[in-house]
Amino acid sequence: MATLQDIVYSAAINLLSALVFLLAFAILRLQPINDRVYFPKWYLKGIRASPIHSRAIVSKFVNMDLKTYIRFLNWMPAALRMPEPELIDHAGLDSVVYIRIYLMGLKIFVPITLLAFAVLVPVNWTGGTLEQIKDLTFSNIDKLSISNIPPGSKRFCAHVLMSYIFTFWTFYVIYKEYKTTAFMRLQFLASESRRPDQFTVLVRNVPPDPDESVTEHVEHFFCVNHPDHYLTHQVVYNANKLANLVAKKKSLQNWLTYHQNKYERNPSSKPTTKTGFWGLWGTRVDAIDYYTAEIGKLSEEEDKERERVINDPNAVVPAAFVSFKSRWGAAVCAQTQQTSNPTIWLTERAPEPRDVYWDNLAIPYFELTIRRLLVAVGLFFLIFFFMLPIAFVQSLASIEGIEKVFPFLKPVIEMKFIKSLVQGILPGIALKIFLIVLPIILIIMSKIEGFTSLSSLDRRSAVKYHLFLLVNVFVGSIVTGTAMDQLKTFLNQSATEIPKTIGVSIPLKATFFITYIMVDGWSAIAAEILRLVPLVMFHLKNTFLVKTEQDRDQAMDPGCVDFATSEPRIQFYFLLGLVYAAVTPLLLPFIIVFFAFSYTVFRHQIINVYNQKYESGAAFWPDVHRRLIIGLIIAQLLLLGLMSTKEARELTPLLVALPILTIWFHVFCKGRFESAFVKFPLQDAMVRDTLERATDPNLNLKMYLQDAYIHPVFRGGELERPEIIDEEEDNPLVPTTRNSQKSQSKYSSDVSSGAGS
Amino acid sequence: MATLQDIVYSAAINLLSALVFLLAFAILRLQPINDRVYFPKWYLKGIRASPIHSRAIVSKFVNMDLKTYIRFLNWMPAALRMPEPELIDHAGLDSVVYIRIYLMGLKIFVPITLLAFAVLVPVNWTGGTLEQIKDLTFSNIDKLSISNIPPGSKRFCAHVLMSYIFTFWTFYVIYKEYKTTAFMRLQFLASESRRPDQFTVLVRNVPPDPDESVTEHVEHFFCVNHPDHYLTHQVVYNANKLANLVAKKKSLQNWLTYHQNKYERNPSSKPTTKTGFWGLWGTRVDAIDYYTAEIGKLSEEEDKERERVINDPNAVVPAAFVSFKSRWGAAVCAQTQQTSNPTIWLTERAPEPRDVYWDNLAIPYFELTIRRLLVAVGLFFLIFFFMLPIAFVQSLASIEGIEKVFPFLKPVIEMKFIKSLVQGILPGIALKIFLIVLPIILIIMSKIEGFTSLSSLDRRSAVKYHLFLLVNVFVGSIVTGTAMDQLKTFLNQSATEIPKTIGVSIPLKATFFITYIMVDGWSAIAAEILRLVPLVMFHLKNTFLVKTEQDRDQAMDPGCVDFATSEPRIQFYFLLGLVYAAVTPLLLPFIIVFFAFSYTVFRHQIINVYNQKYESGAAFWPDVHRRLIIGLIIAQLLLLGLMSTKEARELTPLLVALPILTIWFHVFCKGRFESAFVKFPLQDAMVRDTLERATDPNLNLKMYLQDAYIHPVFRGGELERPEIIDEEEDNPLVPTTRNSQKSQSKYSSDVSSGAGS
Repeated sequence: MATLQDIVYSAAINLLSALVFLLAFAILRLQPINDRVYFPKWYLKGIRASPIHSRAIVSKFVNMDLKTYIRFLNWMPAALRMPEPELIDHAGLDSVVYIRIYLMGLKIFVPITLLAFAVLVPVNWTGGTLEQIKDLTFSNIDKLSISNIPPGSKRFCAHVLMSYIFTFWTFYVIYKEYKTTAFMRLQFLASESRRPDQFTVLVRNVPPDPDESVTEHVEHFFCVNHPDHYLTHQVVYNANKLANLVAKKKSLQNWLTYHQNKYERNPSSKPTTKTGFWGLWGTRVDAIDYYTAEIGKLSEEEDKERERVINDPNAVVPAAFVSFKSRWGAAVCAQTQQTSNPTIWLTERAPEPRDVYWDNLAIPYFELTIRRLLVAVGLFFLIFFFMLPIAFVQSLASIEGIEKVFPFLKPVIEMKFIKSLVQGILPGIALKIFLIVLPIILIIMSKIEGFTSLSSLDRRSAVKYHLFLLVNVFVGSIVTGTAMDQLKTFLNQSATEIPKTIGVSIPLKATFFITYIMVDGWSAIAAEILRLVPLVMFHLKNTFLVKTEQDRDQAMDPGCVDFATSEPRIQFYFLLGLVYAAVTPLLLPFIIVFFAFSYTVFRHQIINVYNQKYESGAAFWPDVHRRLIIGLIIAQLLLLGLMSTKEARELTPLLVALPILTIWFHVFCKGRFESAFVKFPLQDAMVRDTLERATDPNLNLKMYLQDAYIHPVFRGGELERPEIIDEEEDNPLVPTTRNSQKSQSKYSSDVSSGAGS
Repeated sequence: MATLQDIVYSAAINLLSALVFLLAFAILRLQPINDRVYFPKWYLKGIRASPIHSRAIVSKFVNMDLKTYIRFLNWMPAALRMPEPELIDHAGLDSVVYIRIYLMGLKIFVPITLLAFAVLVPVNWTGGTLEQIKDLTFSNIDKLSISNIPPGSKRFCAHVLMSYIFTFWTFYVIYKEYKTTAFMRLQFLASESRRPDQFTVLVRNVPPDPDESVTEHVEHFFCVNHPDHYLTHQVVYNANKLANLVAKKKSLQNWLTYHQNKYERNPSSKPTTKTGFWGLWGTRVDAIDYYTAEIGKLSEEEDKERERVINDPNAVVPAAFVSFKSRWGAAVCAQTQQTSNPTIWLTERAPEPRDVYWDNLAIPYFELTIRRLLVAVGLFFLIFFFMLPIAFVQSLASIEGIEKVFPFLKPVIEMKFIKSLVQGILPGIALKIFLIVLPIILIIMSKIEGFTSLSSLDRRSAVKYHLFLLVNVFVGSIVTGTAMDQLKTFLNQSATEIPKTIGVSIPLKATFFITYIMVDGWSAIAAEILRLVPLVMFHLKNTFLVKTEQDRDQAMDPGCVDFATSEPRIQFYFLLGLVYAAVTPLLLPFIIVFFAFSYTVFRHQIINVYNQKYESGAAFWPDVHRRLIIGLIIAQLLLLGLMSTKEARELTPLLVALPILTIWFHVFCKGRFESAFVKFPLQDAMVRDTLERATDPNLNLKMYLQDAYIHPVFRGGELERPEIIDEEEDNPLVPTTRNSQKSQSKYSSDVSSGAGS
């Protein structure tokens, strides 16, 4: 058991490391040379230009203005200043709603914390059980927790009552948030300018027809069944091979640039390379000639393949993007069933063009269900087998474990300071390492499952990651942490015993989770703002690959909100907060700090750094809500389990009502709000159609939609009709009106005051 | 423990009682006087007329033709003879698909039984455990069950293997059945003649508008949002008070007729009645005058109320039946979301007019969710508190229980014959009594839940009843039967212990369930065909109320398939069969007899007796499928539980895969077929619209739909436009073409050969 002192040590270390990160960030971001790493968003928007031209050589790279170093935290208020509507214009609804999750954390937990400290802490502190038991070692933290209440005590009424209040408060907050988000989404969709996906429906599983090609079949089907509304359609090509060629060419191009740059800087020696794998073996040749020749060969191959794909009827997959004359027609087609066989002619609202995941458009229904089954089983094994190494490492990471395995370390470890350090940090780090490789596996699994848009891939991965965190981090830490052997017993244990087993361990693990919050929640967030990896990558690219200003733009890696991993991690903090609110209120302030700090950091990031890959209009909110409900139910069940071991039988029936109420609340909210995130209401569609007919009666919609849904590999190439693509790109997602541009520039100069632009 | 002998006794008694019922039926149905009780369907179809006119006085009432008595079972082949397509024409798809459930039972269990008897029975019989344990009393039945296999034996492989084969065979059969039913439904819907509900959408939760009445608001909304398709609409009146008046008037009318009849038969004494409650007290008056006056008063009141409802804007509830110009338009509106608030302007495909449950059309969304929560909690308590009396009665109904409570009965009970009788029959009867009051409660609960059509009320009640049977009859019988005290332990027991506890008791309860099948499945079905209650009721009415031929038609109570209770009961047999297939195969033949016998009986009933209240087009099949899946999963979990207590650890992982596969199979089937039962595909709608435009270009659809959805109380009254209603009734659900009429008459004379029509 870690004592209060361990916590203080650990807190100090983590605060220190967070402070170091923040300081480093404060210094690095003020250097003009790093400007593109810390403010890429503004460059991408075209509002900020490189500071190279107007300065002396030194100040091009280093900020010499010492004044600006003094207030090293001044990015924080700057980040908080931009009002929400402008933030939506600037960064899109997805990002804004994402940071609202942190805000929601504050809204839930600040009042809960105040109440818990006012009521539960005094009740627990005066419980006086732990002092009576002589042979038990306990820390002061435990005296603040529910463990300090004697079994069968009437004091548990306070916990039950509080758990009701916490639940209803959470209901209130998340209901309001769901409502606000739904409203924001509808506002956002209504204020959007014309976009191809508003008129388009993705049709999958076009059945084969012996007499007609896919494109004819699609045209005939929709001409017959949507005669007044069908406009045009685009078939989908299987361009995976072509995409590979394009990617390969791009990589060769990079090498060519690298060698050319090298040659320019040092014209005396011509760069050479080897022809074999990765340039490691084979005959040595002149690098520039070699790569130029290779790229020429690839270009030819690419052209041939492009030709083949466009002309080969077999390269057309049985899917199409069907466009309609009106938003109303598209909304109708997306929401209705087309034929009596519900596994063919599947229609759904088309994702926006940059959100399409092209590889998955052609999976037949039966294969899809098989894939889902396999992924579900795979996920189960992934979650299950990940459990063992974590448990092993954690058992090592205890003082006793280390002494057992490495007896020679005993004298070192027994030193008070190091002991605290080991106990405070190691378990958290052990967990952290395991979590790094995971997101990639999960996104691959989601791709196998066959989802057709990047946003849905992200959402599905988040579901998996959340499950993983629940089982491995939450349950895994609680149960194996107390005893490695419990794992095996646990697997053979019955389902309602689990809340009890976990519930009993909950108060004991408070210190572990406090440490975890500090490592994962505080330091990691501070590291996020420092952007070490993009910083290094940018400077490497800048040195070796960049020739023109455009290259430099491409070398920026603004990144984006990684919904698939970040959101489940936030949910984990919600879960911790909800679980410990009635058990060990001391944990709550740590969570509040996490939410407040993260909110500031991510607000700064979405303003200055992240560039979203797609815009789904906050389509993920129902998932967020559902996971909050899951967290609430887990918290309630664990409290129930804990209570039932405390000889407080008469109180447990009261607690049973909570999960039922919570499920009802979920059903209620789902019915009330969810369809705002799934369907596009006909009334709104009609309003916009009518408006558009009035304002733009001569619009050539067919022309506008013609090439909207074309595979990106065709877009990059030398295809004809590039003007259409330009037109589409002239209609960006977020309308950059003059007004919002102005305010953006204002904030841009605010947040980087002194950065020297 | 009941022995094999008890079973034989019980079987003999039940077979005897079934035989008595069948004999009674065979004799009664041949009497012309009962013709309307046993062949009401043909009367309702107008194919059969009363045999009164053409016979001598005696043969009007009693069948004197002795030949016809000889083959008293000849109704059976007759019932089986009518081919399915004609049966659909004759009785509707709901009924036909309903009896296909029994057929599916045969398809599933005949091969399973053969296989189980070929493989499992020899394996079990030679297990030889029970002989070795000296102090255990066991019957020969147990020697045939899995109990006879020693723990840890390799023989369990056979059970695991068989359980896989059974599962896959069940998958195959229910997949094929789902497919067939979906096909039949689509065929049926496509072959239907024009019906108002094809063009109509039920719109609920019309939001209040300060400036417009409901009817104006509805008209404007749909004119704007479905401009090309909206045709007309009908508002819904709150006519509950009027409906009460109509019902009251009808009851008074019955009394009047009764007294008039009495007076006609015995003109010497004028009938009198008392004016008070139910004619039990109050002043004595002349009955005919009194009732005539009362009816006159009521008629006036009714007219006034009718006037009020039609003219009072507050009598209009915020719901409407909106009709469209085409089936396509209606299908689109029913499947799409109308506004951004998904709790107003809710649209769904309108139920057919006679299927509408008028009282529930005006419930707002929030109230609806509250009602569902309350009903769910209510259902929980209903299920939970019903358990205690059943358990109590069953503990009494054991030999030991009776001897304990009534020690003086000991000598009687200990007689061998009576002991077997008590053990064989009592537990089954105890259960049965409890199940009689239940359906009424459940249908009331479903009404509270707010469903808008009779068919959905039936389906929801079936869900509740199924749950009830699962918990109280299945689990309740297994657990409390072995020991009353287990109940309490059970509630505090953990969830994965439950499969073990139940699984272990499963083999022990085989004899109980065999008895149950014979009482509930054999005798009760035989009683169903005898129709004792309708028989008595008909003769009572015929004696006291009938004056004209039309009255006699009304006195018939053909009844209908009571889906809400019958289907869950079939499911219970499926569950028993699936659970015992791998455990005690001896139970399977009893189930097969049940399915075969029921199939014949109900086929006979839907041909000759039942008159369906509504036609939902087999909309209940997804429920049937889901409950089969639940049965499969329960069977698999219980086998898993049983195995895990048999020291067959290495085999249990193999069994874990089964429920997962089953859930996957369910998801697969749901995606593949379910929407055929929920949505109306646009392609089909378009085909029918086009066809109709070609065949009937001058159809005045507005006229046709005008009064289709009018509250039945307005219909019975003296409203103008009765010709519209007639027209609608001229388009009955099942097109009675000359051809099918002919064949129906043929079968009519077949099945009642010698009944004297």
